[in-house]
Amino acid sequence: MNAEIVTIGTELLLGEIVNTNAQYLSARLAELGINVYYHTTVGDNLPRMVDTLARAAARTDLVVITGGLGPTEDDLTRQAVAQVTGLSLKRSDVAVAHVENYLAQTGRRPTPNNYRQTEFPEGSILLDNPRGTALGFLLSAKNTTFLCMPGVPQELYVVFDAALPHLRQRLLSGETGVIESVVLKVCGIGESALEEKLRDLSQGTNPTLALYAKLGEVRVRITAKAPDAAAAQALIAPVAQEVRNRLGTMVYGSGDDQLETVVARLLLARHETLAVAESLTGGLVGHRLTNVPGSSGFLQASLVTYSNAAKHQLLGVPWEILSTVGPVSAETAPAMAQGVRERLQTQWGLGVTGIAGPGSDETGKPVGLVYVALAGKTMVVEEHHFSGEREQIKYRSSQAALDLLRRHLL
Amino acid sequence: MNAEIVTIGTELLLGEIVNTNAQYLSARLAELGINVYYHTTVGDNLPRMVDTLARAAARTDLVVITGGLGPTEDDLTRQAVAQVTGLSLKRSDVAVAHVENYLAQTGRRPTPNNYRQTEFPEGSILLDNPRGTALGFLLSAKNTTFLCMPGVPQELYVVFDAALPHLRQRLLSGETGVIESVVLKVCGIGESALEEKLRDLSQGTNPTLALYAKLGEVRVRITAKAPDAAAAQALIAPVAQEVRNRLGTMVYGSGDDQLETVVARLLLARHETLAVAESLTGGLVGHRLTNVPGSSGFLQASLVTYSNAAKHQLLGVPWEILSTVGPVSAETAPAMAQGVRERLQTQWGLGVTGIAGPGSDETGKPVGLVYVALAGKTMVVEEHHFSGEREQIKYRSSQAALDLLRRHLL
Repeated sequence: MNAEIVTIGTELLLGEIVNTNAQYLSARLAELGINVYYHTTVGDNLPRMVDTLARAAARTDLVVITGGLGPTEDDLTRQAVAQVTGLSLKRSDVAVAHVENYLAQTGRRPTPNNYRQTEFPEGSILLDNPRGTALGFLLSAKNTTFLCMPGVPQELYVVFDAALPHLRQRLLSGETGVIESVVLKVCGIGESALEEKLRDLSQGTNPTLALYAKLGEVRVRITAKAPDAAAAQALIAPVAQEVRNRLGTMVYGSGDDQLETVVARLLLARHETLAVAESLTGGLVGHRLTNVPGSSGFLQASLVTYSNAAKHQLLGVPWEILSTVGPVSAETAPAMAQGVRERLQTQWGLGVTGIAGPGSDETGKPVGLVYVALAGKTMVVEEHHFSGEREQIKYRSSQAALDLLRRHLL
Repeated sequence: MNAEIVTIGTELLLGEIVNTNAQYLSARLAELGINVYYHTTVGDNLPRMVDTLARAAARTDLVVITGGLGPTEDDLTRQAVAQVTGLSLKRSDVAVAHVENYLAQTGRRPTPNNYRQTEFPEGSILLDNPRGTALGFLLSAKNTTFLCMPGVPQELYVVFDAALPHLRQRLLSGETGVIESVVLKVCGIGESALEEKLRDLSQGTNPTLALYAKLGEVRVRITAKAPDAAAAQALIAPVAQEVRNRLGTMVYGSGDDQLETVVARLLLARHETLAVAESLTGGLVGHRLTNVPGSSGFLQASLVTYSNAAKHQLLGVPWEILSTVGPVSAETAPAMAQGVRERLQTQWGLGVTGIAGPGSDETGKPVGLVYVALAGKTMVVEEHHFSGEREQIKYRSSQAALDLLRRHLL
């Protein structure tokens, strides 16, 4: 099965945003074994949209569309698909209920515009969108399947998931063969050093092994093609095991795991509690941990003590340390970790302090100098030197803090 | 002058990389007043490349191409352009010297493949690439101009700069003009309601006005076309002013402004300090504020009091409130704001508490119920009902908290 991805939006043609949707969809379609032959982007202009969709339908089996499903007069995807397929738009009671219920949840009422979002080409299968008013839809006409989804990335992701069973069904009736991937996530080693360790494994063709550097971590993707998913996974398994053998605890997880979800899982399994004391990360460690549902089961508090006064008053960091070696030091980080652990009476106290830049503090220490400390039955302190801009250094520091905790929870 | 951007590379169709080149070129072409009507991505496949370039040439004046200029057999852009224009490839002595010199600088000698990079369609103007062996080229044939550049972003940027004088010359002989945009950022009103307020303004053609929804805010983009930037801005200014008149303080900024940078600017200008008490946002308010360089000039601390015990112990929220109306209530939020303000001795105390989901708390209140409170010389409390998933509700809550503060700093 061959596909074309059509992304709709004038803001893309003006260069105001990067087209991450095309990448996301390409990767997801590749997982299903669907060949993507073209990406096309077109503005919110009905004649050009119709022309683009007609060409796409003529040259591929599946046209995957994002954008143009909103409530405004610029949102023309429903009309364009209707025109290309020769089907008329019909109001859906299910969609009316969805729009009204979605808005009611937030105390809003539909405007006349919102009812534009309830009309779809006849014969469409509607795709649920729990994150917005715009339902997606799937439609087969004239040997082509049209899959239409919202352009807001968070909405696209859930609507694509809703489309998956329908796509799989259509694939089953056609050609066979699947592509499966396993992603291992690695922390505490750089991409080049990792490449040295895995060089021989990356020579294979089925499965293939590829590395992707992300901020503060590296991902190892192992991909195999086989007649079915089980056969593909059987090709992947020994290579994944070999990677784990070589990297040990540097592999923190796989698939959808994130450092914060792994830490949360470990703490909840051990029935242990955590309190965090943050300085340069400014709340990012707490934010990441509280993104995990159920984090109230272990997290008591995260105290962002940005000023020296707050470090002293709220955590008991001695003035003597702050005024001599300074707030970014191998003495302050453990005092923060121990202070927050004692005050919140938790099993674990995590402290992180450093210089995020762009400027240094009054001590003139280098930007990117970061100390993380973990207070449990014993105390561990680590010194890091991170590069990058302010937000990157903050993120790398949060990785270092969470990873320090993770390694001690294993 | 109308253009199509064609990006070439199978890695784009597999979703392995994001197409930042299309965004870069769109933005640069918009600055020149060139209308980009389409982006198309195609793999390293000669028939599909030829088909794509022929269509692009038929529907636009300028076809801007990246990728496919490397030395390997997969690199087919030179051949594809030759085929579409009916011109033959010819070796260039200048290119031979460039390739040999470039490789010699790094102690390398050309492989036979490298000489593929020295052949161009007859009549091409070569474009220098100081960062690699692949020269760009510009070619006019059959009423279409083809601009071909390398796909490696760092090389693309310098080759595009080398093409600029030639593009300007072609623009001068045809139509002229530039496109300018102003983006106003709006908080506290939904996209549909905003469209109702601005409907008449969105009917214009020069300038045009378009809305796009982002998480927790809406952007209003006003775009004008004129002979020069000053004339375009003169067309934009009265419409921007009218939008500001209608929306008042709901317009929080423009251009690169973010809610946190606006709040930071206001607090620093007033020489006032802030302390934050967070619950459901888990540190996100502090994280966003500390992303702003210089935030240590106003932010004392952000206390993420996730448990009831932490709310009582660190902020002094009375047990009576927590055990009767509960931690998510119109009583707890102001107690948090006042508690953190008193303890950190700041001018402003900001409190936010709510239910991020997916589950409710023990009181069974609805997911998305959020209270924000601002303690200054007086106290303000707001109740919100947000929709979405956990991370969206956290973000919307951080927007509400920052916006409450912003409106009181004006």
